[in-house]
Amino acid sequence: MKFLGKQYIIEMKECNVKLLNDPEFIGKIMYESALKANATVVQQFFHQFSPFGVSGTIVIAESHINIHTWPEHKYAAIDIFTCSDSLNAENAINHLQKSLEAKQCNTSMIHRGEVL
Amino acid sequence: MKFLGKQYIIEMKECNVKLLNDPEFIGKIMYESALKANATVVQQFFHQFSPFGVSGTIVIAESHINIHTWPEHKYAAIDIFTCSDSLNAENAINHLQKSLEAKQCNTSMIHRGEVL
Repeated sequence: MKFLGKQYIIEMKECNVKLLNDPEFIGKIMYESALKANATVVQQFFHQFSPFGVSGTIVIAESHINIHTWPEHKYAAIDIFTCSDSLNAENAINHLQKSLEAKQCNTSMIHRGEVL
Repeated sequence: MKFLGKQYIIEMKECNVKLLNDPEFIGKIMYESALKANATVVQQFFHQFSPFGVSGTIVIAESHINIHTWPEHKYAAIDIFTCSDSLNAENAINHLQKSLEAKQCNTSMIHRGEVL
């Protein structure tokens, strides 16, 4: 079977609370992670929610990377969606885990768009 | 078990090819779908790839809705991520399926962020 895309579902747990609530920091490490994955950044957007939490998306030529953080639960939900075999998701995931100081990181992958 | 978010993974197949390659149309129906889901739109971004395909994200207060289209395969990958129980994902999915004239729509749901 052939598929058009791969989607990595990443659960970052036991992160540094302060970092999860800093939209500038989140934007910076998301951008860095896109570069480390060999992705081509098209557009990015980060938003801080009140009283806490950050949401952000980086649209890449290969699809997207996005994040939602829950500082009050030391948790971040991250997705990496790619339609390119040359995107190195592992590099991005490792960079994000290290940067967020996440003690636990669970990643699963699902295929998208079966080519019939 | 309690979770922080729900993520709907939507596979739209056998869509109208012309519509899938029209970023204005895609932006319009994504925005409408957010409203139909009772979501609060924060920001939106749509991008047309060369020679074809559209990627777009709507950041909503409840998390995000995004889309990637492959006109050449009559296919769109859509995700709806919500941290709110009041978001009506079904309404959004029905609107998108109808608008894209998708003959087939497969939806699965995954929980995100288990609260320990």
